[in-house]
Amino acid sequence: MSKDLYAVIMAGGSGTRFWPASRARRPKQFLPISGESPMLAETFRRIEPLISRERILVVTAADQVELVRATLPELPVENVLGEPVARNTAPCVGWAAAELYRRAPDSVHVVLPADHVIRPAERFRETLEAAAAEARESDVLLTLGIRPDEPHTGYGYIEAGDEAGERGGIPVLDVLRFVEKPDLARARTFLESGKFYWNAGIFVWRTRSILAAIERHVPTLHEGLSSLEQGAPIEDVYPTLPAEPIDVAVMEKALNVRMLPVDYDWNDVGSWAALPDVHELDEHGNCEVTSGDSRVIAIDAEGCVSYAEDGRLVALIGVRDLVVVQTADATLVCPKERAQDVKAIVERLKGEAPEFL
Amino acid sequence: MSKDLYAVIMAGGSGTRFWPASRARRPKQFLPISGESPMLAETFRRIEPLISRERILVVTAADQVELVRATLPELPVENVLGEPVARNTAPCVGWAAAELYRRAPDSVHVVLPADHVIRPAERFRETLEAAAAEARESDVLLTLGIRPDEPHTGYGYIEAGDEAGERGGIPVLDVLRFVEKPDLARARTFLESGKFYWNAGIFVWRTRSILAAIERHVPTLHEGLSSLEQGAPIEDVYPTLPAEPIDVAVMEKALNVRMLPVDYDWNDVGSWAALPDVHELDEHGNCEVTSGDSRVIAIDAEGCVSYAEDGRLVALIGVRDLVVVQTADATLVCPKERAQDVKAIVERLKGEAPEFL
Repeated sequence: MSKDLYAVIMAGGSGTRFWPASRARRPKQFLPISGESPMLAETFRRIEPLISRERILVVTAADQVELVRATLPELPVENVLGEPVARNTAPCVGWAAAELYRRAPDSVHVVLPADHVIRPAERFRETLEAAAAEARESDVLLTLGIRPDEPHTGYGYIEAGDEAGERGGIPVLDVLRFVEKPDLARARTFLESGKFYWNAGIFVWRTRSILAAIERHVPTLHEGLSSLEQGAPIEDVYPTLPAEPIDVAVMEKALNVRMLPVDYDWNDVGSWAALPDVHELDEHGNCEVTSGDSRVIAIDAEGCVSYAEDGRLVALIGVRDLVVVQTADATLVCPKERAQDVKAIVERLKGEAPEFL
Repeated sequence: MSKDLYAVIMAGGSGTRFWPASRARRPKQFLPISGESPMLAETFRRIEPLISRERILVVTAADQVELVRATLPELPVENVLGEPVARNTAPCVGWAAAELYRRAPDSVHVVLPADHVIRPAERFRETLEAAAAEARESDVLLTLGIRPDEPHTGYGYIEAGDEAGERGGIPVLDVLRFVEKPDLARARTFLESGKFYWNAGIFVWRTRSILAAIERHVPTLHEGLSSLEQGAPIEDVYPTLPAEPIDVAVMEKALNVRMLPVDYDWNDVGSWAALPDVHELDEHGNCEVTSGDSRVIAIDAEGCVSYAEDGRLVALIGVRDLVVVQTADATLVCPKERAQDVKAIVERLKGEAPEFL
């Protein structure tokens, strides 16, 4: 463990793609979607062997600070930052960097989302260590690029350039450009070229470096952070910060960006249909995600994704390729291929039954 | 209302075909399957305009006596008979008849299951009144026969003979024989003949007449009832009674059986797949059975049966012809055509998770 290495876990998401398990008061990162524990806890445990708990910050919505503390009781309470309003990732990254600068101005830190699956954890930590070594000795902004194994249209891509160096056996590549989610034809070209990587939204940099990049590329964010430093209340400042992703606000503009290519399992688990990618399946291709003594009984079912928490039961007979999610007060049933349409249910609920949101 | 007319509602069923809504402690007759109220309450209200509550007995399992009282708070408490063990319908009919004989030896009474749907209720009561008038003046055992509109293989049939008389505009027919559930070819022959009726298991007779028939055709039941009359405890006597259906024990053997043909809606609601037959459907053929502020939200769903109680929600996207049942701790999903296979789930649960039974 390096004492100058910190981490910022971004746990502010409020996604609806995992309704009805995810709710406004308990979004995806607090759900046991990828294993027995909430995704936030799995993310925390994935990095803790490398970065001790005292040096891990979690940024979340102000009204979820208590939930973070309950999920990570081992985390020092002062390491949870509660955003008064959600303003995308640039303010989150900036605020956390400013806080780390106050605590450890010479630190290097990792920024990572709370709701990804990355395996094996050991290799992920090796990558972070290599990236930290690179960042420690340079002013670069490092991002991890995942080597694609399919022409995925749901991810942003990074086009890598020449090898600029190497750390711990991992090449450090120049970055030519960031590309928004492509259509299928373009994604196929990317895949075939061998030069494009998925943008995992995982970054490593010196705290000074990201703050300098923010000052240069996002002046309104820099001003906000300065006024915070001068004692302005977070509740007043935060709503004025630019609601942009850090990728757009900084990474696409900065010239000192480098990428570490990785080729182990990474998944942002974007919908119920992604669960089979991160779980063992039974011999009929069923994916059963249960926690807390809950269970699935399937008779003649194939290719289904079932989710049940807290001692509850899902029973399937003779169905194929369905998503079935059971919670205390709501059940969702839809074909896997329509898992993205859960948002249509959420839209309906806003008008008809907001108590289920 | 005739002061000599009584009713016996048989509410002892412990069926599993409506799992997970029906449980060992709360079987079908206590569920709001056909409307907003439990089926037992709907059955009670269907006959109460004809037979006042003081003259209605409900026979149920001893451990469901409290549930009957809670479901029918208006029923006099002494009118609930709790069977120590389930022994099919012959002992139930016999015990209730013996009890009515004690209270009103000259009475006529109706015997009917608690879990059927019969509409319109007004016409059903007219049939009961006509049957009661016939029984009052004769020693016959009357059964209702439902004119079939499809070659149903799930019902027993009654072959009717000549018209023996008429009451209130309804013919009273001789009965040639009772037939067990037929195969489809035979059911088609029955339907085409115009002579066969579904056996609804609804009977009308003088209390004396059924007791005399039991004495003649089921001597072991008669002996048991006699020992009850002499003060033997019900807990000792009941387990010794012959566990037979009244149809087999008496009706198939007795020569003084008559049938009243009826042609309004009758349905024994034998499985989840039967719900569309007794509910209004939406414009996409979906059947949504909700009670207590529960709701269904369906997007691109067709022909589905959804069931939710107690303020819970079922959300469907892009599915067809499914049964989706949501309860507090269990959800069932299966195609309508496999609704009978719910019993396979129940069998699995006996071994694996009896807490869900």
